[in-house]
Amino acid sequence: MPYIRATIAYDGTDFLGFQWQAGGRTIQSAIETALGQVAQEAVRVVGSGRTDSGVHARGQVIGFNTAWRHSLADLQRALNAVLDPDVAVLELHLAPPGWHPRFSALRRHYRYTVLNETLRSPLDRRYAYWVPEPLDLTALRAASEFFVGEHDFASFGRPMPRRFEATGSGSTVRRVFSAGWQQSGSWFTFDVVGNAYLRSMVRSLVGTLLEVGRGAWSVGRFVSVLTACNRALAAPPAPACGLCLMRVDYDGQFYKEQQT
Amino acid sequence: MPYIRATIAYDGTDFLGFQWQAGGRTIQSAIETALGQVAQEAVRVVGSGRTDSGVHARGQVIGFNTAWRHSLADLQRALNAVLDPDVAVLELHLAPPGWHPRFSALRRHYRYTVLNETLRSPLDRRYAYWVPEPLDLTALRAASEFFVGEHDFASFGRPMPRRFEATGSGSTVRRVFSAGWQQSGSWFTFDVVGNAYLRSMVRSLVGTLLEVGRGAWSVGRFVSVLTACNRALAAPPAPACGLCLMRVDYDGQFYKEQQT
Repeated sequence: MPYIRATIAYDGTDFLGFQWQAGGRTIQSAIETALGQVAQEAVRVVGSGRTDSGVHARGQVIGFNTAWRHSLADLQRALNAVLDPDVAVLELHLAPPGWHPRFSALRRHYRYTVLNETLRSPLDRRYAYWVPEPLDLTALRAASEFFVGEHDFASFGRPMPRRFEATGSGSTVRRVFSAGWQQSGSWFTFDVVGNAYLRSMVRSLVGTLLEVGRGAWSVGRFVSVLTACNRALAAPPAPACGLCLMRVDYDGQFYKEQQT
Repeated sequence: MPYIRATIAYDGTDFLGFQWQAGGRTIQSAIETALGQVAQEAVRVVGSGRTDSGVHARGQVIGFNTAWRHSLADLQRALNAVLDPDVAVLELHLAPPGWHPRFSALRRHYRYTVLNETLRSPLDRRYAYWVPEPLDLTALRAASEFFVGEHDFASFGRPMPRRFEATGSGSTVRRVFSAGWQQSGSWFTFDVVGNAYLRSMVRSLVGTLLEVGRGAWSVGRFVSVLTACNRALAAPPAPACGLCLMRVDYDGQFYKEQQT
């Protein structure tokens, strides 16, 4: 039974996150149900990581075994035909030997989107966090520089339960390869690429960075929270609606630039 | 009792259109209910035009009388506090004497958005129409040129019931000031500015234009449908999700450029 690597996208608004939950509509259960329908088999899906309830994805990666006997293109068409409109399979490949969606992942790219306007926007509310107070791009950028590199991010989240851990170590040390803010008119976007993340880490970082962006916190206070390794000091996490898993990188063979 | 001019925005997905309907959630009833809550009065709201079920707006204009005694800024805040997240009041002004949201409107700008990719996109499905077949921008543009100006658009819609008519004439002649397609990567947008429209006219035009864009129809066939004034010849209307009322222009005093 071959092991398949799939790239999927979803609008997380109406899902209770990635991970299976009794009685809850989740990404994992949606994909497993679809595989059951089209391949007539009970399949267990593993993700590159768990996204929280309400978090979106344009490039989540999952793996599963299947006894499907036809082409992968046919499997993709069949899955997309039975999946609800808020989730889709973008790519399917045979996984190389030993590949694992979580343990083989080298880099995960998240984007957080903020709409910085005085009035809330009905047409943007599902995919952006509305911040009415003026934001200072320079301050946001200055604070973001401090956590690029390897740091103990204990102030910004707890490790996943051990069985879901990318590192399997229970450690709160993570490596951030790049982090930066862009502004285009009223839109602020935060892109972060790391090896792995603590639970709610990106939303917690963004929530705290936005205190700096609003001028309520100094960059120095942000740095002191980072170095204190004390979760009680961080600001509340930013809402899930603004967050999107853009891409997961494995090796060069599977690298694919997602539309951004 | 002063007459108020309001600019509103809405995500039309979960509304049964603008116009009041018994037992249905509509824009009109949402605004009237909100005015009832904050101003403790039964208010009748009139729109610049009726948008169909599922059609969005970034710049719909409405008018209503109110006995509100405080500032318009306070009224706007109060309305936005009680309105659901999918509708918002962007601006409030005292209307000049004799102003009417429908009869005083000079130009109405609609935008239709198409996502032209081989796979459906869960994160774009609410605000764009997904067309998987390759589209020919040159053909779309060539066909669109033919209906700029004053034409009988009977092939693309029926007049509104007389009491909702902008012109009040029952005629199917309308004036289109400009119409054009833009492409940015996979995104095709159609912007049309006209004095008024027949019922479903923009969606019907787009549905027919897309037959030309797909290469299924020639530009000549499009022109023959336009000139035939026969509704049976047009293609089915494009879905409501792609359509957005961007702006309604009155005189210079009330002109406001909406974000596009």
